[in-house]
Amino acid sequence: MAQEADVVVVGAGVAGLIAAHALLQQGKEVLVLEARERVGGRLLRHALAPNCWIDLGGQWLGPTQERAYALAKRLKAELFPTYTDGESLVYFGGQARRYAGTIPKLGWMPLLDFGNAIAKLDKMAQQVPLHAPWDAPQAAAWDSMTFASWIEQSMRTRVGRWGMKLFAEAVFAAEPYEFSLLHALFYIHSGGGVERLSNTRGGAQQDRFVDGAQSLALRLAEQLGERVRLHQPVRQITQRDAVVHTTTQAGATYTARAVIVAVPPTLAGRIEYDPPLPPARDQLTQRLPNGSVIKCFAVYDRPFWREHGLSGFVTSELEPLHLVFDNSPPDGSCGILLGFMEGASARRMSAAGHEARREATLHCLTRYFGERAAQPELYLDHDWSAEVWSRGCYGAHFPPGAWTQFGQALRQPVGRIFWAGTETATRWMGYIEGAIESGERAAQEVLEVL
Amino acid sequence: MAQEADVVVVGAGVAGLIAAHALLQQGKEVLVLEARERVGGRLLRHALAPNCWIDLGGQWLGPTQERAYALAKRLKAELFPTYTDGESLVYFGGQARRYAGTIPKLGWMPLLDFGNAIAKLDKMAQQVPLHAPWDAPQAAAWDSMTFASWIEQSMRTRVGRWGMKLFAEAVFAAEPYEFSLLHALFYIHSGGGVERLSNTRGGAQQDRFVDGAQSLALRLAEQLGERVRLHQPVRQITQRDAVVHTTTQAGATYTARAVIVAVPPTLAGRIEYDPPLPPARDQLTQRLPNGSVIKCFAVYDRPFWREHGLSGFVTSELEPLHLVFDNSPPDGSCGILLGFMEGASARRMSAAGHEARREATLHCLTRYFGERAAQPELYLDHDWSAEVWSRGCYGAHFPPGAWTQFGQALRQPVGRIFWAGTETATRWMGYIEGAIESGERAAQEVLEVL
Repeated sequence: MAQEADVVVVGAGVAGLIAAHALLQQGKEVLVLEARERVGGRLLRHALAPNCWIDLGGQWLGPTQERAYALAKRLKAELFPTYTDGESLVYFGGQARRYAGTIPKLGWMPLLDFGNAIAKLDKMAQQVPLHAPWDAPQAAAWDSMTFASWIEQSMRTRVGRWGMKLFAEAVFAAEPYEFSLLHALFYIHSGGGVERLSNTRGGAQQDRFVDGAQSLALRLAEQLGERVRLHQPVRQITQRDAVVHTTTQAGATYTARAVIVAVPPTLAGRIEYDPPLPPARDQLTQRLPNGSVIKCFAVYDRPFWREHGLSGFVTSELEPLHLVFDNSPPDGSCGILLGFMEGASARRMSAAGHEARREATLHCLTRYFGERAAQPELYLDHDWSAEVWSRGCYGAHFPPGAWTQFGQALRQPVGRIFWAGTETATRWMGYIEGAIESGERAAQEVLEVL
Repeated sequence: MAQEADVVVVGAGVAGLIAAHALLQQGKEVLVLEARERVGGRLLRHALAPNCWIDLGGQWLGPTQERAYALAKRLKAELFPTYTDGESLVYFGGQARRYAGTIPKLGWMPLLDFGNAIAKLDKMAQQVPLHAPWDAPQAAAWDSMTFASWIEQSMRTRVGRWGMKLFAEAVFAAEPYEFSLLHALFYIHSGGGVERLSNTRGGAQQDRFVDGAQSLALRLAEQLGERVRLHQPVRQITQRDAVVHTTTQAGATYTARAVIVAVPPTLAGRIEYDPPLPPARDQLTQRLPNGSVIKCFAVYDRPFWREHGLSGFVTSELEPLHLVFDNSPPDGSCGILLGFMEGASARRMSAAGHEARREATLHCLTRYFGERAAQPELYLDHDWSAEVWSRGCYGAHFPPGAWTQFGQALRQPVGRIFWAGTETATRWMGYIEGAIESGERAAQEVLEVL
């Protein structure tokens, strides 16, 4: 098989595959090198039964993610709405409370506190330029503090602060003290606001893929055919004049006129570059850790909670499952509860092992949905920090100082090396939408030099 | 040459060499694999003339660094005091002011502010257990905020805050917003207090090596002879039962019963591990970036500032050289001013290039020492972020959340892989002393399993 192409793409996640398609459409020959035995990166589906898929990785689309909806349509990837009928649960202070709509019943003081905070965040977020967060008028101040410090200073109620911590965990898979206020604001702007990021209906968790989100990547890869090479973990990228050699762990070398690296920044930093990367780019990759998340699934013969008027959606302070969704298939032919262990919970439960996670998950689900939840037909989970070619999800977060000190190296090409991946996106960073934007942008940059 | 040993050590910095010596003394056969063409890691000397050395890397010892002094004595590495006679300069508000002793004349309010802050920090630091910073009574709160936020909240004067920023840059080669308050406190405890870390006489900058600090590593390596293998960048570490195979970029494989990895955490994260590292260890390495520093040297025919009663020591708000030392050889046969570009200044000036750094350095030195400083016989600098096998200095810092979420993975062996390097030390982390402690500790851990 050919070892030469116009462009080599490292990573067959959505970003890399989109870049490859964009280049191919412009008549460039491409090769996509993927470390794993599969495509899709942080999108990964799993068959519970024939044609019954769950997503162990990214799974949702929501309004304003226009590139992603267009791609789904083009690839005939069918969508259906996340189940939201009925009442939701908030578990706080030792008990589960039902509520209708999106606002849990936790008193008007916390609600006011939380509402004020959202309004402030959304307003500040508007001041962060998506292409250059470091140019925000208050960038220095906002990047010098953690999001946790802002919460501490700006919110008054224990419950309101807890809600904001939950927001951080749910959206960043990290604790609010792990990233800067500037990063929180950038991300909020990038996703269109706190509520857009948080909500199911009308928000980023609105729609699911009938065949799993990974089907996007599978179909893109299918169209690329033999241009996608699996089992090719890239170890080294060597630039000599206008020629780039990409070498895999097994020693295969691919030659091209440009390379697009479409993997998370922390993993991009583990590739050997010759000549070495400039200090700013290298030190950037030392500073963008991935979040920590374990997706936990309990599968029942039917979605029994629906019979009690429950949507399956839970927010909770009970450890370690702070967030639960009804993740049943579109026809409700079985019932699936999806619980998230995120940030600190994910770290604790990653070390605790599979059996402890199963027990903890079922313990929580039983507190939320009653004894019926204790006996699923199946339990499974997926720890993204243990995936060698992801090493964390949903994506990278920027600790204090990273945006203002190193942000300019995020997309800056290094010779004939270009950077893609959802972390390099301006809109919907961290989401499928951002991955698509980044792939298109990187392809465009390559076309300008080839 | 033998490709087998009881223990393979990765990295011939002080930590690795000390570990190798400790193992050899207990009758274990060792091999030290070093990526570079030289030993010493972040210690690197440069000959200005025959037997006239400057240190491009780490260079000082100070009181309570007992292991380091003992090692210097054992290796017959001669020390001499950093020059401190005469008055120092503080450059602030557009002018240089002279002062005697250690306290610049910047008004009693800032001094009180700064003194209070030091007292508070030293007191809080005492509460951080050196073996387990995450167990500090207020660990969660202290790790949820940046050191910058603490300064903002706890200090009242602009000048006092500037002084603390200078402390952060000088000690961490990072800005105070890049690491957590908990890390600042741990580090202060680890080094014996703010003043111990900051001072020349009586502090961490007290003594210099006549033959350069790297001479420690060179002499240790000499004693190890052929056990030290240069040009052996380690790419992969494979564990099978109780056997560990270490493979270099060139494909050489070394077999041992244990491996000590004695490189900075961020670089340790770039090695391929088979089986893969546990999530906590891997995610730790994503979160410990190295600081940024460029050492700049201006060499004159004689230390002319001494003739004007100046010590050569400057603290300054003038960009980019905030800190200057007299770094002349012991006999004063020529005059050397050593200026530091640290943190944000280092990043800016790294990108700006060598000529811009020369100009900026001489501009600053002229403002501090007059026109005489504008015409050195020689200018040279060293950018540690550009060194592929260091990728930053002086060492790693812990951003918010890193200590409490991942600190326990710092020294925890993974099978037969053990971790050394100054970042794993409890006393004088980041210093030569910490490197020695870490090497001794790792060797001891290995001896317990072999």
